[in-house]
Amino acid sequence: MTYPVNLSLSEAARRIAAGRLTAEALVSACLEKIQALEPEIRAWAHVDAKAALLRARQCDQQSARGGVHGIPFGAKDNIDSFDMPTEHGSIVYEGHRPAADASCVALARERGAILLGKTTTSEFAHVTPGATANPRDPARIPGISSSGSAAAVAAYMVPVAIGTQTGGSIIRPASYCGVIGYKATYGDFSLSGVKENTGSLDTLGFFVRDISDVAVFRAAMLGTQPTTCAEVSLADLRIGFCRTPFWDQAEDSLRSQLETAVSHLSSGKARVRDITLGEDAVQFVEALRSISAFEFSRALAHERIHHGNRLSAALRSGRMHDGLNCSYEKYVEACGIAEKFRGDLDCMSADCDVLVTPACTGEAPVGPPAKESPVFNTIWTGSHRPAVSLPVFAGPSGLPMGLQVVGHRHQDEKLIECAAAILRALG
Amino acid sequence: MTYPVNLSLSEAARRIAAGRLTAEALVSACLEKIQALEPEIRAWAHVDAKAALLRARQCDQQSARGGVHGIPFGAKDNIDSFDMPTEHGSIVYEGHRPAADASCVALARERGAILLGKTTTSEFAHVTPGATANPRDPARIPGISSSGSAAAVAAYMVPVAIGTQTGGSIIRPASYCGVIGYKATYGDFSLSGVKENTGSLDTLGFFVRDISDVAVFRAAMLGTQPTTCAEVSLADLRIGFCRTPFWDQAEDSLRSQLETAVSHLSSGKARVRDITLGEDAVQFVEALRSISAFEFSRALAHERIHHGNRLSAALRSGRMHDGLNCSYEKYVEACGIAEKFRGDLDCMSADCDVLVTPACTGEAPVGPPAKESPVFNTIWTGSHRPAVSLPVFAGPSGLPMGLQVVGHRHQDEKLIECAAAILRALG
Repeated sequence: MTYPVNLSLSEAARRIAAGRLTAEALVSACLEKIQALEPEIRAWAHVDAKAALLRARQCDQQSARGGVHGIPFGAKDNIDSFDMPTEHGSIVYEGHRPAADASCVALARERGAILLGKTTTSEFAHVTPGATANPRDPARIPGISSSGSAAAVAAYMVPVAIGTQTGGSIIRPASYCGVIGYKATYGDFSLSGVKENTGSLDTLGFFVRDISDVAVFRAAMLGTQPTTCAEVSLADLRIGFCRTPFWDQAEDSLRSQLETAVSHLSSGKARVRDITLGEDAVQFVEALRSISAFEFSRALAHERIHHGNRLSAALRSGRMHDGLNCSYEKYVEACGIAEKFRGDLDCMSADCDVLVTPACTGEAPVGPPAKESPVFNTIWTGSHRPAVSLPVFAGPSGLPMGLQVVGHRHQDEKLIECAAAILRALG
Repeated sequence: MTYPVNLSLSEAARRIAAGRLTAEALVSACLEKIQALEPEIRAWAHVDAKAALLRARQCDQQSARGGVHGIPFGAKDNIDSFDMPTEHGSIVYEGHRPAADASCVALARERGAILLGKTTTSEFAHVTPGATANPRDPARIPGISSSGSAAAVAAYMVPVAIGTQTGGSIIRPASYCGVIGYKATYGDFSLSGVKENTGSLDTLGFFVRDISDVAVFRAAMLGTQPTTCAEVSLADLRIGFCRTPFWDQAEDSLRSQLETAVSHLSSGKARVRDITLGEDAVQFVEALRSISAFEFSRALAHERIHHGNRLSAALRSGRMHDGLNCSYEKYVEACGIAEKFRGDLDCMSADCDVLVTPACTGEAPVGPPAKESPVFNTIWTGSHRPAVSLPVFAGPSGLPMGLQVVGHRHQDEKLIECAAAILRALG
């Protein structure tokens, strides 16, 4: 019998529904895994073992409803929980206890999912990292800022963990840690109870280890009826291969493996064409930087004014400083550039079901500190499109690198179906 | 000498900066006014007189910086304050004390504005009203949901008070109470620390009694440098007169006065043309209803799940019920309709500086309970445009009714300049 922590979310849920696994056994196994690995990985800001076990036993008393019933999950610590601290990766919020669950947590719990704990986040989901190590190589970073959620899933501590992405904070950690990362269409998941970083870019998503888990947990977080994704044939796929203007920043190994993968998809009868982005994409990314700086410096006004000396220097001197020095006129100009690019990209890629593109520049760097770049993520976050990172490549050090699949806005289910087809073809 | 409470924000700020008025005198006068009228008007959920006076004396010790230095303000009670309760108009949040100020409160305070207290809101800024009476006629409603803020400014309790609008919650109360209401371009003011109602529609704004106050307080809330609005000539204005497809729902008196006003603007050399909205505007408003229901029912998931019996029946059986029964497909379809209409409206009105349209259907109705409609507001909230209500009309009972001026997105300053020109012409 497979050890419970090794089960995917969907398989665990099926076994719980069929009476072949108890939620208590699954939660216990996850807690044991956390106990064993947490000293090295440090993926959690807070774990409530007792409450999780109690809730698991309650779930086992109820008739299992399938979906996510009895499934333990983690939530990034910038997402409110009414019964656990929510510290936003900052000493400013030490011991802070919100009044309510964030929408996504409340909805997942309503379906029977069990919040095991809160996963580490960088300070206010910005650049100053938490203490989490990469489970694939603890000398390397797990990625920023949803580092704890990515690491917890990669280390088999939990089958699913929620994260947020403003730049590349889901897709990049997923790529570095070798798990599947999913960032939803902007606006689909309610941000109620999620600490604002950049209101017009912040997007929820999560990490899992099996592509079939994405649609299941998405329905739970969205409060919609679970659906079964269709199995689409590679031959029915119209794929846009988008190297982006930042292609040269990707490591050789990633570029060559992605080219090979695309050839493989093409020879598998998928219709593939190049999507070439020009200078306007570079301007778009630059505009997103202004938007993020302007909004971030306002969203964290209270923290800057009342707790300035408890914020990291990187936060104060970086995006916050830039934002306070960004004029409204420049912000509005940036909003205009962003809106135009979104529309142009929609037109340009209308005949593609999905785009494939790098999820990151390469393997997880050694650190922290580490220099890393969200160039392959901000375009898609800024264009409000759903994206999935698939752990299909391995770098020179044998560490995972992701292939990113990007869908059209509000076509998240189609994206998931296409990503599954690509994964089958390359897996 | 004018009694301090009768001063506009700008005039009070000028006097404070010139040493002709102290913040303490102004705050004291506002507190006296509140003490005198609050038993009848009930505009406040919480007032902290002691803290406000202390802060006023501190302001008086500092060199006055102009702008909003020493100016008392109110904030709707769905907006977080770290040193006062924030109860969202619901017994669920009785005594709730947030960890931080909302962005807009923090930024206004940073410029020296003094938070006098929290103004009443309907339950979660939805339909179940607070206890506030209309200062123009206490037998009538002040409008929903930023009722307390509108009434507090109309009753001269405070020169400015912040509100939120998801349907018509600023413009309508402003119209009913006979003050100036300003709703910003969607997204400009950070919603950090504002309780989510409908994430893709919620917009901040405020109430004042003088048009010259709008740009001043806007700069404070936005964290930008104060600017001086230009005085534009009526002859330079290109005005679109938009009756909307809901024209027949406006009372005769309002319609005829608006027609007369438009003729007057036209004879004053403003270039006026009709903007006719068709069936697509009706569909747009219908789509906004689906969007709001879907998002609202998710934003308040925690409250529904944990405190369902402490929510009003109107909230549960109305928008929340509709939202839980709205499929994702219907929501996405509605998002598509909304996005298309926004673009079409931009094209259709590109040659107009502003649109003029009713702010409400007529005078404030007797109540509560009262039947009233946001039909003249949701179009503009949903199109993410800035809007101002000007108290220039009087209904059959002698009560105020507003003329609404609508600008283009991110052209809030231009809107304010145009609204000032219209006010001068009609005033």
